[in-house]
Amino acid sequence: MIGSVSPNVINRMPKYLRCLRAAQERGEKRISSAQIAAALGTTASQVRQDLTVFGSYGSQGYGYNIALLAGEIERILGIDAPHEIAVVGVGGIGRALLEHMDFKRYHYHVTAAFDVNPALVGTTVNGVPVYHMQDFARVIGENPVDICMLTVPKSAAMEVARQAYACHVPALWNFSDEDLKLSGLDMVVQNVNFLDSLFTLTYYLEDSKITMTPAANQ
Amino acid sequence: MIGSVSPNVINRMPKYLRCLRAAQERGEKRISSAQIAAALGTTASQVRQDLTVFGSYGSQGYGYNIALLAGEIERILGIDAPHEIAVVGVGGIGRALLEHMDFKRYHYHVTAAFDVNPALVGTTVNGVPVYHMQDFARVIGENPVDICMLTVPKSAAMEVARQAYACHVPALWNFSDEDLKLSGLDMVVQNVNFLDSLFTLTYYLEDSKITMTPAANQ
Repeated sequence: MIGSVSPNVINRMPKYLRCLRAAQERGEKRISSAQIAAALGTTASQVRQDLTVFGSYGSQGYGYNIALLAGEIERILGIDAPHEIAVVGVGGIGRALLEHMDFKRYHYHVTAAFDVNPALVGTTVNGVPVYHMQDFARVIGENPVDICMLTVPKSAAMEVARQAYACHVPALWNFSDEDLKLSGLDMVVQNVNFLDSLFTLTYYLEDSKITMTPAANQ
Repeated sequence: MIGSVSPNVINRMPKYLRCLRAAQERGEKRISSAQIAAALGTTASQVRQDLTVFGSYGSQGYGYNIALLAGEIERILGIDAPHEIAVVGVGGIGRALLEHMDFKRYHYHVTAAFDVNPALVGTTVNGVPVYHMQDFARVIGENPVDICMLTVPKSAAMEVARQAYACHVPALWNFSDEDLKLSGLDMVVQNVNFLDSLFTLTYYLEDSKITMTPAANQ
């Protein structure tokens, strides 16, 4: 049933969750669909429609119980349970995320990192040991992970994906600038491409110029 | 008119473009909606519907002329024209993107970077000079930019956004882990949050376990 929820709704769930957790940090107990909508730049009816997909957690005139709704979204997303992550590629983005991202807050545990650069092998990044890629099968065999984060160059991405598949890693979080199409490999993939968001930003930037020019001339 | 295009369509345009440019690199001249759909994990009718929003560039039985359609999408997104970018925060993600991202390919020019760390000020990262944040107004005043990339900690994001606004920077590309709501500031913002994609991946991972378990038991 959940499987039939539209990808757009799923993509908005993390944003709802962050909005709710931020409200909670401000000490708030309840929130209206209009407040959520304002925070996310959408409409109250969109919020209500999205959230009723999973059952109704709001009541008219009261709004949503923040703790209850946030907990439910975490359960729906599956992030209330712990997940193990391995990072492949400890160069730029991989290292930056290892150093700065608060994985633990949502029960993600980075167990191992891998690289082919001998200067990095044997070091630790934010407490995570860096192994040589040639030890991938052994290390992952001993400590299975749910998610493999690919922060390798485009040219290496498919080969690492195959190795992860061979080691029964079920999910890839792919930053490699190459959209992976894993025909034949039964894995879940999320491609992250920075250019996509830069292009989208540029569209809205140019669009705002068109919209604003007549007003500026008035 | 373009302003009324749904955000979902706009969000898919960069993916279409990357798919088309990849086909072009393989030496292909034309592509069908079914081929685009397969590459993006969507349906051919969705592709046709999205692309007709901007006028029809395909013909039945022939498909789309790749060069023509890619050029048109670049024009629609506004990325056929040059854009200047300033980077604020040369720590983890900022440095990683400066070092690894191919900005020039799509006519983005990173003119300046800023940080508050004295050890970084005066250095260059991938040819981009790093200035102290206290020189932001002067440097941006002398060399205006279209886009300010925010790769600063959450706590500094809003203050940097205000400074960028005061210097007439029209767009923010925000990696600061804080969704900026710029009430009163007339700026275009694109928030990039890595947790969002990790959460979405986790959802599909958990969903795949539910879907696969019965089959595995048969």
